[in-house]
Amino acid sequence: MDTVALAAELIQRPSITPNDAGCQELIGQRLAKLGFTLETMVFEDTTNLWARRGTEGPVFCFAGHTDVVPVGNEDAWEFPPFAAVRHNGYLHGRGAADMKGSLAAMVVAVERFVAHYPDHQGSIAFLITSDEEGPFINGTTRVIDTLEARQEKITWCVVGEPSSTSQFGDVIKIGRRGSLSGDLAILGVQGHVAYPHLAANPVHLGMPALTELVNTEWDQGNASFPPTTFQISNIHAGTGATNVIPGELYVQFNLRFSSELTSTQLIERIERVFTEHQLDYKIRWTLNGEPFLTDSGELLSAAIAAVQETTGIEPELSTSGGTSDGRFIAPTGAQVIELGPVNATIHKVNECVREADLDALTLAYVKILEKLLC
Amino acid sequence: MDTVALAAELIQRPSITPNDAGCQELIGQRLAKLGFTLETMVFEDTTNLWARRGTEGPVFCFAGHTDVVPVGNEDAWEFPPFAAVRHNGYLHGRGAADMKGSLAAMVVAVERFVAHYPDHQGSIAFLITSDEEGPFINGTTRVIDTLEARQEKITWCVVGEPSSTSQFGDVIKIGRRGSLSGDLAILGVQGHVAYPHLAANPVHLGMPALTELVNTEWDQGNASFPPTTFQISNIHAGTGATNVIPGELYVQFNLRFSSELTSTQLIERIERVFTEHQLDYKIRWTLNGEPFLTDSGELLSAAIAAVQETTGIEPELSTSGGTSDGRFIAPTGAQVIELGPVNATIHKVNECVREADLDALTLAYVKILEKLLC
Repeated sequence: MDTVALAAELIQRPSITPNDAGCQELIGQRLAKLGFTLETMVFEDTTNLWARRGTEGPVFCFAGHTDVVPVGNEDAWEFPPFAAVRHNGYLHGRGAADMKGSLAAMVVAVERFVAHYPDHQGSIAFLITSDEEGPFINGTTRVIDTLEARQEKITWCVVGEPSSTSQFGDVIKIGRRGSLSGDLAILGVQGHVAYPHLAANPVHLGMPALTELVNTEWDQGNASFPPTTFQISNIHAGTGATNVIPGELYVQFNLRFSSELTSTQLIERIERVFTEHQLDYKIRWTLNGEPFLTDSGELLSAAIAAVQETTGIEPELSTSGGTSDGRFIAPTGAQVIELGPVNATIHKVNECVREADLDALTLAYVKILEKLLC
Repeated sequence: MDTVALAAELIQRPSITPNDAGCQELIGQRLAKLGFTLETMVFEDTTNLWARRGTEGPVFCFAGHTDVVPVGNEDAWEFPPFAAVRHNGYLHGRGAADMKGSLAAMVVAVERFVAHYPDHQGSIAFLITSDEEGPFINGTTRVIDTLEARQEKITWCVVGEPSSTSQFGDVIKIGRRGSLSGDLAILGVQGHVAYPHLAANPVHLGMPALTELVNTEWDQGNASFPPTTFQISNIHAGTGATNVIPGELYVQFNLRFSSELTSTQLIERIERVFTEHQLDYKIRWTLNGEPFLTDSGELLSAAIAAVQETTGIEPELSTSGGTSDGRFIAPTGAQVIELGPVNATIHKVNECVREADLDALTLAYVKILEKLLC
């Protein structure tokens, strides 16, 4: 029951992004006792912890976050969101599933593992941020920058995101699609609707190019990724007056893309469409992340086996969902997977996690460590 | 010089829409002396005057407005906008050209005509509103409703709008295009850009239909009208967030249409496009005016001859420009033309009119009356 107790202690610290609220200190105390070297990295409003036991490679790293999303309407919660109430086999509270339960599970797993194997191979590390649910500018990405600058490499990384959907262990995330956003302005000439020959309507000018982008088959995906998608999220033009032809059309769009493509290729293809349609345009690109994938290797094999041994379940390997901090770690060359509890209640009222799942998760984490570092 | 003097008196009354500021009373006093029956029709904030001399048909009517647009930046005016300053052969002030000069010209023309032909044929009427520059809800349209309800018909109507472009008499307006606006909502299903299969993007759904409308050749126009045009004036979708697929797309568009088409036909054609594209949509239509045209008849012949005899100019017959109150009068079956001074300064600072043009306009109006009612 160690994991549930530690998870409850973490939940009681109301660490809404970017506040850590003392969670990393609590985790650090536990790790220091095991011989971890602690390095707190504060960037702007964000506190991060890099903790490492051992100096040799390979480096096994657990990546997680102490911050939680806001509670929303607190009156709608069955139990106070930071009370960490245990009820009918579930631990309740904001962060129970996303991801204080996973944090606690890995701390306890490492405690058990080190107790049995004080002289394990390689190193064990924790990369903990308090900026995963927010702007993700001063969190994992800056810790990775620091590590890269001193050529400190992660070999295998387990991200503690709640990957499971119906029951613990049914899904291991092995990557994510890339995410690329465009902020487009198509320039025309404003005028009066009664005199369209004196104006150039940017809505009319832009529509064929946008239609072409909407209808484009970017790729067919692959075994690990669905086909790349393009979605317009915002479109605006017009002065509000019904008799004025607008001067500019503003469009925001987003692509979720498979590992068949790079952001560079996408940008080139999209800008070529605008050029071919002879548009006068400006565009600002935001790369939220390149696609990443760990579809084989020791880490994935260890994780699959650990889940099977613990639960009897054959996990589905998935790349679906939004973004995760794995996108910052994978480009360093690390193998990255995500394994955590059921995500059904995350970001909602009455977030909770099954206590038995936290115990199973702890056991699975121990088994992964054993398979990789013994 | 009677016309310039009366125009100056009208300019000194600062009748910004919908205020009449006593202009109609001044005009009414002059007309009452000639034997006109006066009928003031007040609708909401708008004062209208219907004045008629004679009870028989045919009915010649002058349609005009006493209201003027705001002065804008008064400091930018060379002369105070309501001072009616005469300078270098020009009468200056807000409304000098649009359209207090024309009102004065027709009052003086009728005075002269009645002095010579007290027992003229038919009737002479004035339809004056103070709501032409504003929302045009309580002005000419409601006077026409009143006349129609009692089956009082206008045979020939001269609208005093400043039709001339370079010199007085160079253009007679013989009609206007129709104007139809659509307020469209295309309904989709909101969702997350990472899961487009769970959403239905109304921007994507609507684009093919909108592209079809933009590319449609509605007609080829005719001898009097240019081809019908379609313009999107406003388009909006999106929550502002870049990762959300919007639930609705809002589009406002406007058609300026020739006499080859009716608004009913346009609405049917456009709604058929939406239906063929299987869109879930709502639309609200606003008919600003059906197209109208007087390309022949006694009125136009009289006006052309009057302009030629007065100025030696062969007037161009045009249907260009925005809307005019003629759109409310033409549907009753009346022949409608617009003849007035040069419009170069209307709605601008330093609005002014050439004094000699007002005298020529007065003479032309007299000749029209002679040709029609003698």
